[in-house]
Amino acid sequence: MSLIIDCHGHYTVLPKGHDVWREEQKAAFSAGVSALPYPLISDDEIRDTIESNQLRLIKERGADLTIFSPRASAMAPHVGDAAVAKEWALRCNDLIARVVELFPDRFVGVCMLPQSPQADMANSIAELERCVDMGFVGCNLNPDPGGGHFRHPPLTDRYWYPFYEKMVELDVPAMIHVSGSCNPAMHATGGYYIAADTIAFMQLLEGDLFADFPSLRFIIPHGGGAVPYHWGRYRGLADMLKKPGLDTHLMNNIFFDTCVYHQPGIDLLADVIDNKNILFGSEMVGAVRGIDPTTGHYFDDTKRYVDALDISEAERHAIFEGNARRVFPRLDAQLRARGL
Amino acid sequence: MSLIIDCHGHYTVLPKGHDVWREEQKAAFSAGVSALPYPLISDDEIRDTIESNQLRLIKERGADLTIFSPRASAMAPHVGDAAVAKEWALRCNDLIARVVELFPDRFVGVCMLPQSPQADMANSIAELERCVDMGFVGCNLNPDPGGGHFRHPPLTDRYWYPFYEKMVELDVPAMIHVSGSCNPAMHATGGYYIAADTIAFMQLLEGDLFADFPSLRFIIPHGGGAVPYHWGRYRGLADMLKKPGLDTHLMNNIFFDTCVYHQPGIDLLADVIDNKNILFGSEMVGAVRGIDPTTGHYFDDTKRYVDALDISEAERHAIFEGNARRVFPRLDAQLRARGL
Repeated sequence: MSLIIDCHGHYTVLPKGHDVWREEQKAAFSAGVSALPYPLISDDEIRDTIESNQLRLIKERGADLTIFSPRASAMAPHVGDAAVAKEWALRCNDLIARVVELFPDRFVGVCMLPQSPQADMANSIAELERCVDMGFVGCNLNPDPGGGHFRHPPLTDRYWYPFYEKMVELDVPAMIHVSGSCNPAMHATGGYYIAADTIAFMQLLEGDLFADFPSLRFIIPHGGGAVPYHWGRYRGLADMLKKPGLDTHLMNNIFFDTCVYHQPGIDLLADVIDNKNILFGSEMVGAVRGIDPTTGHYFDDTKRYVDALDISEAERHAIFEGNARRVFPRLDAQLRARGL
Repeated sequence: MSLIIDCHGHYTVLPKGHDVWREEQKAAFSAGVSALPYPLISDDEIRDTIESNQLRLIKERGADLTIFSPRASAMAPHVGDAAVAKEWALRCNDLIARVVELFPDRFVGVCMLPQSPQADMANSIAELERCVDMGFVGCNLNPDPGGGHFRHPPLTDRYWYPFYEKMVELDVPAMIHVSGSCNPAMHATGGYYIAADTIAFMQLLEGDLFADFPSLRFIIPHGGGAVPYHWGRYRGLADMLKKPGLDTHLMNNIFFDTCVYHQPGIDLLADVIDNKNILFGSEMVGAVRGIDPTTGHYFDDTKRYVDALDISEAERHAIFEGNARRVFPRLDAQLRARGL
C-alpha cells in the first residue's frame, strides 16, 4: 500500500480573524498607519476550518497526507510594500505551522514567500529559513509578483540565484505558483495560473538554469499548464534552440502535479510524461469546487483519475508516494522518523 | 475525398525587399522622418518564396488549400504608432493578395489588422473591409497588441464591439492570434502564443459575448492553447461562474485548430472536443521546423496525426474540409463558384 501524498493543497477556508486582519492590514497601509495587532486565533477555530473542509475531503477521498500551503490566490505580493508582504507571509505561514502541529499525521507545511514587486529575494530567503526551522519541507515561488503582467525577469535570471542557493542548501523544492490576478483581462484560476505554468516551463527551456543548479527542483502545478498537451512543440523548440533533449535538459529537475480535472487530461499526462516526473496533487479546496455531471464526482477528486490509469502498481506508487518523498527529502526524513 | 484545407498558414519566408523595407520603416519612425517608398517586388520573387517553402511542403504532405495570412510574429502592433501599423498591415496584406492571385488554387487570404496599443479599432475595420473586397475570407485579431503584458481589455469588452459588428456584417471569422513578444520573460511561440490562447478562451468563458453576437466566430489556434487538456477545469469553472454549459455558452462560436505537434495531443483534442469544433491546421512554415526523432517526420506535419485518428471518415471530412467551409462562408462560396 502506498501512502497517498497530495503535493498541492492550500488553506483556503480560514479562521475569520485572519481574513479580517488582512483587510485591516491593507487599509492601514493605504492610510499610512501601522496595522492593528494580529488577533488571537484559537486552536478550536483552526480545527473547525480544517475538519469541515480539507480533512473531511481527505478522508472521503482516501488520501493520507497533504503538503499544505497558504491560499495561493491571497498571497498577493503586489499589495502594499515589502514590509506588508513580509508580515502577511509570516502570519500565513504561522497558521500553516499550527495546522501541522494540530494534525501532524495529515499535513506537512510548505511556505509562501514575502515577495514584493520591487524587492530582491532577501526577505524570502529569511522566511524560507524560518519556515524550514519550523519543519516546512518546501515553498511556493511566484514567478510574477506583479500579479498579471509578467514584468519580472525569467526564472533563469540571476535575480533569483540567491534564493536558489538557499533552496539547494536547505534541500527544499519550490512549486512555481502565481497568486491572484490584478489584471482584468486575466482570470486567476482559469487564465493566469495555466498561462504562468506554461510560460515558466518555456523560460526554463530557453535557459540553462539546471547546469548551474543541478539539484534544484521545481514543481510546475496544474499538470504543467499546457506543456504535456504540447509536448511535441516543446521537444521541437528545444531542438530549434539547440538545447539538449528535454529528458536531460529539464526533466531531472521539473515535476508536474495531477491537478487536471478530467480523465483524458490525466491519461495524456501519464502517457506523455515519464512517471518519475508526476506527483499526485488535487489543489483542493480551491480552484474548481463542483461536481462533474458527466461522472457524478468532484472535478478536483484527482485520485480517481490516477486510480483509473492503466499503469503498473510501481508506477502508481511513484505518483502517489515515491516521487513526493524524492522531491521533498525533508518530508521523507520526517516520515522515516515516524517509521513510515 | 475531402479537400484538405489548412486553416492556419503564415507567409514566413518573404521577398527580401519586404523585410528590408520594414526595417527602414522602423528606422524612419525612430528618426521622425517619412518611410522610404515600398520597393517593387516582382511576381517571380513571390513565386520563388512560395514554391520553395509553403507550396513544396503542401505538395509533400498532401494538403490542397491553405488559408494564408501574414507572418504572425512580425505583425508587431506595438512597433511605431497607428500610422506605422496601418501601412505595415496594408503592405503585408497586399503581399498575401498577390500570393493568392499567383496561386489561386492553393491559397486563400486572411488579413492581419493595423492594430496599435493606443488606437481604437477604426483602422482595423477599414483594413478588414479593404481586404474582404480583395477576396480575403477572414482576419487575425490580436488580443494583446502591446506585445506581452496583457494590458488590453478582455475580448468581451465593448472596446472590440465595433470590429465585431463589421465581422458579422461581412460574415468573416477571426483567428485570435498574438504577435511577437517584446517581453523578455515570454518566448513567443513557446510561451506567449499558448498563454494567450488560453487566456482568450477564459475571457470568453467569463463573459457573454456570444449572446450579443450569436453569429460571431473565433478560431483559437495552437489546439486551443491549454484548453482541451484542462477541459474539466473549464467545464467546472463555467459551473462555478454560473454560466451555461460550454457546449451552448461557447462552442457554437469557438473553434480550435490542430496545431499540436504530437499524436497524443491530437488524440486528446479529438477525444475531448466535438469534431464540429476542430479545423485542420499546421501553422507552417513556422513555429517548429524540425523533424521529430521519435517519428522521423516533421513535428508540424499535423495531417499525419489527423490521418491516424480513430474517427469516422465523416468526422475526418469535417476536420479537413467541412468545418472550414462552415466557419469561412466566403471560402465556401469561392469553392462553390469553382465547382468544388
